[in-house]
Amino acid sequence: MKVVVGNKAGFCFGVKRAIDMAFETARNRKGVYTLGPIIHNPQVIEALEREGVGVANSIGELKDRKAGTVIVRTHGIPMEEMQRLVKEGFELIDLTCPYVKKAQHYAKLLKEEGCQVIILGDMEHPEVKGLMSYAGKGVAVVRGDQELPQIKSKAGIVVQTTQPVEALKKLVSRIVEHTKEMKVYNTICSSTALRLKETEEVARGADAMVVVGGRNSANTTQLARLCESLSVRTYHIETAGELKEEWFEKVEKIGLTAGASTPDWIIKEVENALKEMGGSKNKWK
Amino acid sequence: MKVVVGNKAGFCFGVKRAIDMAFETARNRKGVYTLGPIIHNPQVIEALEREGVGVANSIGELKDRKAGTVIVRTHGIPMEEMQRLVKEGFELIDLTCPYVKKAQHYAKLLKEEGCQVIILGDMEHPEVKGLMSYAGKGVAVVRGDQELPQIKSKAGIVVQTTQPVEALKKLVSRIVEHTKEMKVYNTICSSTALRLKETEEVARGADAMVVVGGRNSANTTQLARLCESLSVRTYHIETAGELKEEWFEKVEKIGLTAGASTPDWIIKEVENALKEMGGSKNKWK
Repeated sequence: MKVVVGNKAGFCFGVKRAIDMAFETARNRKGVYTLGPIIHNPQVIEALEREGVGVANSIGELKDRKAGTVIVRTHGIPMEEMQRLVKEGFELIDLTCPYVKKAQHYAKLLKEEGCQVIILGDMEHPEVKGLMSYAGKGVAVVRGDQELPQIKSKAGIVVQTTQPVEALKKLVSRIVEHTKEMKVYNTICSSTALRLKETEEVARGADAMVVVGGRNSANTTQLARLCESLSVRTYHIETAGELKEEWFEKVEKIGLTAGASTPDWIIKEVENALKEMGGSKNKWK
Repeated sequence: MKVVVGNKAGFCFGVKRAIDMAFETARNRKGVYTLGPIIHNPQVIEALEREGVGVANSIGELKDRKAGTVIVRTHGIPMEEMQRLVKEGFELIDLTCPYVKKAQHYAKLLKEEGCQVIILGDMEHPEVKGLMSYAGKGVAVVRGDQELPQIKSKAGIVVQTTQPVEALKKLVSRIVEHTKEMKVYNTICSSTALRLKETEEVARGADAMVVVGGRNSANTTQLARLCESLSVRTYHIETAGELKEEWFEKVEKIGLTAGASTPDWIIKEVENALKEMGGSKNKWK
C-alpha cells in the first residue's frame, strides 16, 4: 500500500505566520486570549490553550476574564469589533491573514468609490462577516449559483480568499450583463487554488483519500467535497486516532492531503499511522 | 404568405441622429465631406451625395478637394485624426455616436488609471480603430474565443458597442482568473442586443428571413449570421431589387429585419416588394 502525500497539504502562509506569532506571544505575556478560535482546528486551539492562550467568544467575555492581550484571528473580524477592542484598551496582536486584510481594504475601497459591493463567499464564514462590515450597508453576499441581487449600474466584487476560481468566473460572467461598470478584485488566495489543484491530481490517481483537518474548517471540507465529487472514497478526519484499518483493505494507493489550518504534526501522525498499517510513503511529484 | 417585420429593425438612435444632422448640414453649407462613409450603408451614402455631401477617405483627400466642413462618422475616428482635423482648420461636425464616444472616454480613462486595456471587438472595424487610439500603446484587441494576450495584474476592458453580450460574459470569465484587478466598462449598446433578441424571436417563428442592410455593415451581417445559426433560410440583401420570387415558393411566414444603418425607406421598399409577391404584413408583437 502506497501513501501519496500532497506537497501543498497543511498550513498556508497566513496560518503559519499567525500560529508562530501566537505561540511567541504566549511565551512573553500573561492574560492572552484570541477573540474566537484563531483558526478552524481544535487540536491547534488545545495546544495553544496548554501554553496559556485562551479563547473568548465575545468582547464581554474578554472583559469578564480580564484579558490583557487580544489576538485577532486569521479570518479577521468586523471593523466595528476591531474599533471596540481598541476603545476598550486591550493590547492587540492583529494576526488577520495579510490576504484577508487586503480583501477588507478592497471592500472598503469599493464602497468609497460608490459601488454596490458584492462579496462572493459564504455569509456564515467569519472572514465574510468581516468583509461585510468593511463593505458597509447594501452589501450583498452571493455564493456559487445562488440568485443574484438586483444589480446596480456600478458593481464592485470582492472574494472570500478561499473561494474556488470557477465560482468567480461564473459570477463575473453573470453580473457583467446587468451593469455598466464592474470592478473586480480577485482576492482568491493562490495557495487555496493550488492545494485544490494538487488534491484533484492526487485523488485522480488514488483508490482512497484521507483529508485531515478541522471539521469546522471550510477549506478542509472543500477538499473533502472535491475528492468525493471525483468518486474517490474519502475520509475526512481530524486526528490519526480516527483512522480504521478496515478502510484500507484492498486499497493500493492512498492519497493524503490537509487543509490550510492543519498543522504539520497532525499530518505527520496520520502519515505514520498509515505506515503502521503497511503503507510506504510516496511524495507527490 | 405573411411578412413579420421586427419593431427594432433599422436605424438606431446614434445613426438616426447622425443622418438627420448630415442632411441638415447639407442644406446649410457647401463643401461638406464625411471622412470615410458616415455609416455602413451604400444607399444612404448615395442619397447624401445627391444632397452634396461627399466622401473623402483621407485627410489628404479632404485637402485636395478643398473641403470646408468635415463630418465625423458615427463609428468615430482615431484621436490623432481628430486632432489633425482640428489643426488643419476644417469646421468639424462630430457625429460620433454618443455611446461610442463614451466607450472612447472609458478606453482613455482605463489607460490613465494604469490598466492594461483590452478591447473586445473586431480589430478591422473603424469603431475599434478609434477606441484603440484612446487606449494608447499596449492595447490588446480580442474577439470572441481568440487567444488572450498575457494578462497583467490590472486589466481594463471596454467593448465595441455592437458586440454580443455573450462574448463579453465569456471574456470576463476568461480574464478574471489571470488578474488581481479587473475593471470592465460594459459599453455594449442595448439597441444592438434588443435587435438581436427580437431577430432571434422572429426567425424562430419564420420559414425564411430577409435581412436588409449594407453588406459592409457589421451589425447587419451579425443579424444574418444569427438567423443562419438557427437553421432558417436567410437572405441578406441591400435593396428590394435583389429579392427573387422563387425564394419564397412554399414559404408561409417570412421574417423581415434590418441593421442599425438601414434607413426606413429601404425597409419599406422591401416590405412593399414582398407584399407584391403576395405577402400580407404582420407587425411583430
